[in-house]
Amino acid sequence: MKIYADNAATTKMSKRAIEAMIPYMDTVYGNPSSLYSFGQEAKEALEGFRQRAADIIGCEAREILFTSGGSEADNQAIITAAHLGEKKGKKHIISTAFEHHAVLHTLKKLEKEGFEVTLLDVHENGLVTAQQVADAIREDTALVTIMFANNEIGTIQPIAEIGKVCREKGVIFHTDAVQAAGHIRINVIEQNIDMLSISAHKFHGPKGIGILYSKKSIRLENLIEGGAQERGKRAGTENLAAIAGMVTALEDAVNNLDENTAKVTKLRDRLIEGLNEIPHSILNGDAVSRLPGNVNFCFEGIEGESLLLLLDDKGVAASSGSACTSGSLDPSHVLLAIGRVHDVAHGSLRLSINEETTAEEVEYIITAVKDVVSLLRGMSPVWRNLMEGKQKFILE
Amino acid sequence: MKIYADNAATTKMSKRAIEAMIPYMDTVYGNPSSLYSFGQEAKEALEGFRQRAADIIGCEAREILFTSGGSEADNQAIITAAHLGEKKGKKHIISTAFEHHAVLHTLKKLEKEGFEVTLLDVHENGLVTAQQVADAIREDTALVTIMFANNEIGTIQPIAEIGKVCREKGVIFHTDAVQAAGHIRINVIEQNIDMLSISAHKFHGPKGIGILYSKKSIRLENLIEGGAQERGKRAGTENLAAIAGMVTALEDAVNNLDENTAKVTKLRDRLIEGLNEIPHSILNGDAVSRLPGNVNFCFEGIEGESLLLLLDDKGVAASSGSACTSGSLDPSHVLLAIGRVHDVAHGSLRLSINEETTAEEVEYIITAVKDVVSLLRGMSPVWRNLMEGKQKFILE
Repeated sequence: MKIYADNAATTKMSKRAIEAMIPYMDTVYGNPSSLYSFGQEAKEALEGFRQRAADIIGCEAREILFTSGGSEADNQAIITAAHLGEKKGKKHIISTAFEHHAVLHTLKKLEKEGFEVTLLDVHENGLVTAQQVADAIREDTALVTIMFANNEIGTIQPIAEIGKVCREKGVIFHTDAVQAAGHIRINVIEQNIDMLSISAHKFHGPKGIGILYSKKSIRLENLIEGGAQERGKRAGTENLAAIAGMVTALEDAVNNLDENTAKVTKLRDRLIEGLNEIPHSILNGDAVSRLPGNVNFCFEGIEGESLLLLLDDKGVAASSGSACTSGSLDPSHVLLAIGRVHDVAHGSLRLSINEETTAEEVEYIITAVKDVVSLLRGMSPVWRNLMEGKQKFILE
Repeated sequence: MKIYADNAATTKMSKRAIEAMIPYMDTVYGNPSSLYSFGQEAKEALEGFRQRAADIIGCEAREILFTSGGSEADNQAIITAAHLGEKKGKKHIISTAFEHHAVLHTLKKLEKEGFEVTLLDVHENGLVTAQQVADAIREDTALVTIMFANNEIGTIQPIAEIGKVCREKGVIFHTDAVQAAGHIRINVIEQNIDMLSISAHKFHGPKGIGILYSKKSIRLENLIEGGAQERGKRAGTENLAAIAGMVTALEDAVNNLDENTAKVTKLRDRLIEGLNEIPHSILNGDAVSRLPGNVNFCFEGIEGESLLLLLDDKGVAASSGSACTSGSLDPSHVLLAIGRVHDVAHGSLRLSINEETTAEEVEYIITAVKDVVSLLRGMSPVWRNLMEGKQKFILE
């Protein structure tokens, strides 16, 4: 059996999304910035997709900027808000300790420019509260950037409440919604969001394309300078084929959201139930305020990498932490943020399923993980020490 | 008849490039940064494409960085070289007055950071010389950035000679090869190039993907921060499908380069010959050191926009200047750089043909342009003044 359970890393493109792209590759391939009818046809299609994207998240078309993906959107949003604040003498930014590196590394860059960054502590359940944000906001706070749903442990933050606090205090609120878009209902008005990042390949769209929603009152700073595409805010010939694929995939995801959420949540809960039977294991992140498809566990006495490789042998593609940092030997910064100690944070397993996952596959995964954990513990000197009482269990 | 003569703006994707993309959308769609075999398969494919791209331009695989396109590559190259220079107290940059805006606007940004930019004059034939570069280099020069072939008038610069001068003086040399790649032979070793930008959609590849070649001794600065993809120098999940399409298209272009060059050059020269019959017109840019597919003319007494719209009515898709700035009413900065006065620079026509263009289409274009120019001049008050001797001709 081959089971892909790493949909938080990337997804298979849907047939409909692929089919939506093709016409813009070899038929309506004109440059949307051209004057002739052939280019204008592309321009009209582009603006049609922009309107459709706007309708999905509840904003105006002109508030949608197409980027090369979620990372670019995060970078541009944060740099824009920081520099806008700087002009008013505001050089303080609030974020959390478990953001994606596209956010954290951009904040590091801004620290070198003299910005002060407050990273809010994340509770053990993987959540931050609006109260924490309210307490942290200062006179000189330029930006609050907090992810919609975490990419490793899938916890969903109280975005609307956080947005309300920011709005009341007049601080720009950005949220990295890369894991949320297509999986949770988003409405930037109701949820009080000023800026928001989306990546298409997390919901069966193509790689290399994303959206930065930015409220029209915010004057975006260019990350990529050049031609006057995207109202002069993002240079580079518009990637219309990818935009078509993205918007098609996003519409499909949103149209099927309730049905998929019900289905996937049930599978997820069964997966959690099954893995909870493994002794000295723990579910990372809140069990309820959580992405439908996300399961993340720590197993005491085990190395994440060995776990993944043995699961791979059994046909299960899963991950430990995020794909972006898999080359690294450091423990997950997300797990450290929710209070897991180094030893345990090394042994995490993220399974991200979706609406195509079957109940049979879930049972297969449970058995496979149980077998692999037993096998690895049988070979682990740490586990032997634990069993012999020479070392104390961290996870009861 | 429908004739697409704006291949410098963008090209139709080749069937082979589209077919090369599909498997990475719905079969080998794994995240190349993942540990499991499914991701490793994607990783191997990615590195295979990187090696093939490197082979084409004569560099090492690790010197190839995949970006979202030519603009991003230009931005990252220039910012990197500038800041590397700054660390050594070098804050002077040399470029030309007729670069693409992805270069010029990045230089403007650097000027705000205190860099001094020398824009070399371009000769009337649309060329700069290595001697000009040698004369402009100073002790504090951090970077020379000069485009390989101009996007409006198609003139090909003496890149190898310029590169030699830069190498002798120890200055980093970047070239925007967006119009050159796939159309002119590139070898970064023989041509003494340190950094080079490529965009796939100019040679029948997909939009939204490009290459930044950067010599291994140059430590790249990130433009997009986040995950550790691309050796940590460009965050964002690798766009493997687009990379597959780009490398396939580039290989095809290079494999057929001699044949296509011979064919297209012949068509281009016939087009130039035909349009030269129009009185008071002039070919912009050198007739020989010129991209095979590029033709760019000025016609006295005519507005570029009207010319394009009437040609569009006749089924010919052409452009005036570059697509990136077509929304602008300013005359082309390229034509101003080669000494055309404002009045004439407003009336330019760029026709960019390719290997799919037929001799019959070229004859159709010649007739269409002649007809449209006559029609417009018949209605033009400027032309009446010229004919009545009330105003002097600029183009004899």
